[in-house]
Amino acid sequence: MTALQNRRILLAAHPDGRPLPSDFRTETVQVPEPGDGELLLEILYLSLDPYMRTRMNAGATYAESVPLGGVMLGATVARVRHSRHPDWRDGDIVLSYSGWQEYAISDGSGLRRIDPSVAPISTALGVLGMTGFTAYVGLEEIGRPVPGETVVVAAASGAVGSIVGQIARIRGARAVGIAGGAAKCSYVKDELGFDAVIDHRAPDFAEQLRAACPDGIDVYFENVGGKVLEAVKPLLNQFARIPVCGLISQYSDQATDASISLSDTLFKSLTVRGFIQTDFIERHQAAFLEQAAQWIKDGELRWREDVVDGLDSAPAAFIGMLDGQNFGKLVVRVRD
Amino acid sequence: MTALQNRRILLAAHPDGRPLPSDFRTETVQVPEPGDGELLLEILYLSLDPYMRTRMNAGATYAESVPLGGVMLGATVARVRHSRHPDWRDGDIVLSYSGWQEYAISDGSGLRRIDPSVAPISTALGVLGMTGFTAYVGLEEIGRPVPGETVVVAAASGAVGSIVGQIARIRGARAVGIAGGAAKCSYVKDELGFDAVIDHRAPDFAEQLRAACPDGIDVYFENVGGKVLEAVKPLLNQFARIPVCGLISQYSDQATDASISLSDTLFKSLTVRGFIQTDFIERHQAAFLEQAAQWIKDGELRWREDVVDGLDSAPAAFIGMLDGQNFGKLVVRVRD
Repeated sequence: MTALQNRRILLAAHPDGRPLPSDFRTETVQVPEPGDGELLLEILYLSLDPYMRTRMNAGATYAESVPLGGVMLGATVARVRHSRHPDWRDGDIVLSYSGWQEYAISDGSGLRRIDPSVAPISTALGVLGMTGFTAYVGLEEIGRPVPGETVVVAAASGAVGSIVGQIARIRGARAVGIAGGAAKCSYVKDELGFDAVIDHRAPDFAEQLRAACPDGIDVYFENVGGKVLEAVKPLLNQFARIPVCGLISQYSDQATDASISLSDTLFKSLTVRGFIQTDFIERHQAAFLEQAAQWIKDGELRWREDVVDGLDSAPAAFIGMLDGQNFGKLVVRVRD
Repeated sequence: MTALQNRRILLAAHPDGRPLPSDFRTETVQVPEPGDGELLLEILYLSLDPYMRTRMNAGATYAESVPLGGVMLGATVARVRHSRHPDWRDGDIVLSYSGWQEYAISDGSGLRRIDPSVAPISTALGVLGMTGFTAYVGLEEIGRPVPGETVVVAAASGAVGSIVGQIARIRGARAVGIAGGAAKCSYVKDELGFDAVIDHRAPDFAEQLRAACPDGIDVYFENVGGKVLEAVKPLLNQFARIPVCGLISQYSDQATDASISLSDTLFKSLTVRGFIQTDFIERHQAAFLEQAAQWIKDGELRWREDVVDGLDSAPAAFIGMLDGQNFGKLVVRVRD
C-alpha cells in the first residue's frame, strides 16, 4: 500500500478565455494510508463536464473555485481499495467526488454506492448521474412540458441535452434538438428519436429552427447560451419556461453573455430560472434514480459515452469538449 | 332614459413615446337602451393604470391593443342604472371593465358585485382590485418571501408597490421601498411601515440601496424597469426571485429595456418570471379578497388614493402618472 503513487492534475493557472494545456500541471505524490474511519479509493472513471470551466476562474461563480495548485475537481467512479470505514467494504464501487487523480482518501461522506446490475458503472457519471439528473430536474421542476408542447434543447447529442429531449418525448412533448455537424444531428434524430434536429452550423440556422417549431417554443432548456438563444427568443410562446442549466458557449468568452429582456419576460409571461442540480438532490434524487433505471430497463432512455483513456488525456479532452469535439458524455477511463 | 348622453374618450393616435393629450379624443354619443338580458351602467370611478400605456401601441404586446378610434379601456366601478338582467338589480354597485366613459351597456359577463361595507367602493379598483391582487399574486406565487428575507419594490408609494411591501412585512420579511421625492418616501416609511425607503432621485441612489440591504436582496418585485434594476442586480442574493409585474419607466421608451443576463441567472440561481394578474384570477382571487378584507379589518393593510374629478381629467392624469406625478392609486371620479 505504501508504495502506491498517485498521479493527479492540478490547476496551474487561471485560464484567460479558452483553457490551454499549460493551465494544467501533473504531479505524482505518494498515496497516504487511510486512517481509522477512512477509505482508500482507486479511481476508475472521471467525469469531464463544462461546469468545471467556471471553477477554473479566480472569482467564485456559483460555487467555489479550484485554488491555484489545487487538484482539479470532478465526480468519479471508484473502487474501494482499502476500507477502514464500517459502512464500506473493499471492492465496493462508489460514486465519489475525488477529482482529477488516480487515488483518493475519503471519510465516506458524500459517497454513493453504485449498483452495477442496472447499467455500466460509468453511467453513474452520466445518464444515472449528475448530467442525467440535471436534465431530469431542469425539465420536470422548471420546464414542465405538457403533451403537445415544443421543447428545444441545444447540445442535443450531449450528456444533458440528449436526456432532456428523451424525457420531453416521454412526457408527450415534441423534442427539437440543436447539434453541431451531420453525425451528431443524425444520432439525435435517428437514434435518440427527437422529432427534429437542426445543425447550428447551418448558415440559415435561425430559419431552420423557426421551420422546425411551427407552433413556437414552450420550453427552451438553456445549456449553451450565445447565438442559440438569439434564434430561440422570437419563437418563445406565451408562458414559455427557460431552465438555465449551463452556458458552455460563454464560459470562456463572457463578452457574448446572452440575456432576456424584461419586456419579453413581461409581455410573454416567461419564466427564466437558473438552477444547479445539487439544489434538488435531497428532494428528488431518489425518485430520479428509480425512474431513470425504469426508463433504461424499458428502453426509453438511451445514452452515449465518449470515453478517453488515461488521466493524462483529461486536459486535452476537456479543452476539446468546450469546443464541442466530444460526442456523448465525456468520461476518462482512469483505470481499466 | 333616451335623452342620456355618454361622454367617452377614444384613442386618437398611437403615441410616439410619451403620450400627448392629442393622442386622446373626446366624443359624446347617445346612450342606447339596454336590451333584454342587458344592463345600463353608470360609471362612478375609472381606474388609471400604467399597463394602459402598452395597449395604446399599434403592435399587440401581452394583450390586445386599443384600436384607433376605440374607447380607451379600463376597469370601472359602476352603479346599475337600469337592469334588464335577472341577476342584477337597479342600484347594485359592480366592478366592470367599461373603459373611459360615463355610461356602458353590459350583458353581465365579467361583472363582480362590490360589497360597500368592507371598504369604500373605489377600492375595488385598488387595494381590493386589480392592483392589490397584482401585488398579492406576484409576491405570494412568485416572490414567496420567507421571514427575515429582504424584499425590494419600486414605486413603493404606488398602488401595487405599497401593497407589496405591506404584505412582505406581514410575511415577516424586510420591506425596502423605492419612491420619488421626500413626501412619497416619508409616506412609505412612516405611514406604510416599510423598514427602509430610498429616493430614486438621490444622486447616490445605488449606494443608498446597498446600505439599505445589508443582507442583499431576496425578492425584487419589478414594476418599473430601467435604472432601478441596474442598482438592484449586484445586490441580488443566490436564489433571488424577480416577479416582473410592470415596466412603467420603459413603456414610452423601449430604448431603455432592462435585462438580466443568463450568467447572472445561472450563477445566482435566479428566478425571473413575468406575469399578468388575470392569469391567476380563477385560482386565487377568492382567497385574495377574503384575505385582503381581513388584513384591512385588522389594520394591517393601508392604501392611498389619488382621486381626480371628471372624465375629462383622465388624459392629463394618466400622462402625469407615467411621469410619477400621482401619489397613490390613481382613480377618476367620473360621477359623484
